[in-house]
Amino acid sequence: MAEAATLHHFAFDPASRAARLALGEIKLAVQEQAVRPWDPESPIHALNPSGLPPVLETRHQGRALTLRGLSAILGFADDASAGALLPGDAGERAEARRLVDWFARPFTDDVDAVLLHERMEKPLLRMGPPDARNLREGREALRRHLALFEALAGERDWLAGRRLSQADLVAAAHLSVLDYFGEAPWPAYPALKGWYAKIKCRPCFRGLLGDRFPGVAPSAVYADLDF
Amino acid sequence: MAEAATLHHFAFDPASRAARLALGEIKLAVQEQAVRPWDPESPIHALNPSGLPPVLETRHQGRALTLRGLSAILGFADDASAGALLPGDAGERAEARRLVDWFARPFTDDVDAVLLHERMEKPLLRMGPPDARNLREGREALRRHLALFEALAGERDWLAGRRLSQADLVAAAHLSVLDYFGEAPWPAYPALKGWYAKIKCRPCFRGLLGDRFPGVAPSAVYADLDF
Repeated sequence: MAEAATLHHFAFDPASRAARLALGEIKLAVQEQAVRPWDPESPIHALNPSGLPPVLETRHQGRALTLRGLSAILGFADDASAGALLPGDAGERAEARRLVDWFARPFTDDVDAVLLHERMEKPLLRMGPPDARNLREGREALRRHLALFEALAGERDWLAGRRLSQADLVAAAHLSVLDYFGEAPWPAYPALKGWYAKIKCRPCFRGLLGDRFPGVAPSAVYADLDF
Repeated sequence: MAEAATLHHFAFDPASRAARLALGEIKLAVQEQAVRPWDPESPIHALNPSGLPPVLETRHQGRALTLRGLSAILGFADDASAGALLPGDAGERAEARRLVDWFARPFTDDVDAVLLHERMEKPLLRMGPPDARNLREGREALRRHLALFEALAGERDWLAGRRLSQADLVAAAHLSVLDYFGEAPWPAYPALKGWYAKIKCRPCFRGLLGDRFPGVAPSAVYADLDF
């Protein structure tokens, strides 16, 4: 097991949030170090060739170990916890892996790259007000994705099956950022809302609910466990 | 272990190729079923909500099991082979996972989405001749990425360290498609060329070297083990 750890993260980056949730779930104590990946002077560029958080610096079996990117951190969290974040059942494992990929690819492209660009990156990089058409398209894409997750949440205890998995942490990470900016239309997706209420109560979520984005207050329900 | 398996794949899709290599490495006999994901009538759309190959249908412990997408298939291949495709060392595991992600994200966006779009998708979808500027930009991006892999291949036996891993299979899958179309400038990257020669000789590679793209002959070196 690890001895001491620093997580380099950006509080509103979904991958960084998923790493914090995973490390919280396996109860690995980490010191959180905020990075600003858009700043060319940020130390993240020396830590990761991709220039992106999350990066975990830890010690493992007496040696320094640097884990670059979410897959490496999720895999390490699983390895270090005897598979706490992947179900034992082969079908549920496959679902967990499929859903983690789903967020990395179509969800990030269809939703985050549009809605979070308008709501988060533009104020951060002083790029002017959000574009109404992009907001509309991003919200429509989000609703298409939420309809898929609503079906899963209606059939299963957790998104990949009977056990909490990486898929739940990654999904909650992405949706929690959208929720901060008031972009998560929970009432229309009751089963998914029930799933989110369940994961939001877990101790690993506490840090995220205390995050504040400069100049933007969180939505009314963001930190409310009984929303 | 699995009892009978069908892999739904497209021969020139890098993720499908990586799945074939992984299943070949762990010696899982699969029947290959070609799909055309761009065809709305393709059975792939019913098999995978993403509409994309690869999908593996197999049996596991007496039950039907459908593995959707490369992560699910790579994970299954590891699980079914006692970790044959991930090194035991924690640092090498992290590197393997980092590099698999690297191909999924910046490499696919910077190189495949540009060069393979021009060389492969346009003829396939009858979209007209390649665009010279895109070809130039895609080739420049490829060279930036190859310089990173050349450094790794110069320092390590395999891309993630001392053992062959998922990272080598995924990297070889992407580069082999580019190589078919004559887009892999091997002579400028001697260490990487040595790595590719080593992986190309493995039995798992044989099927790929026999693939033919309609109307485009493979590059002179494509199937040459001593290129």
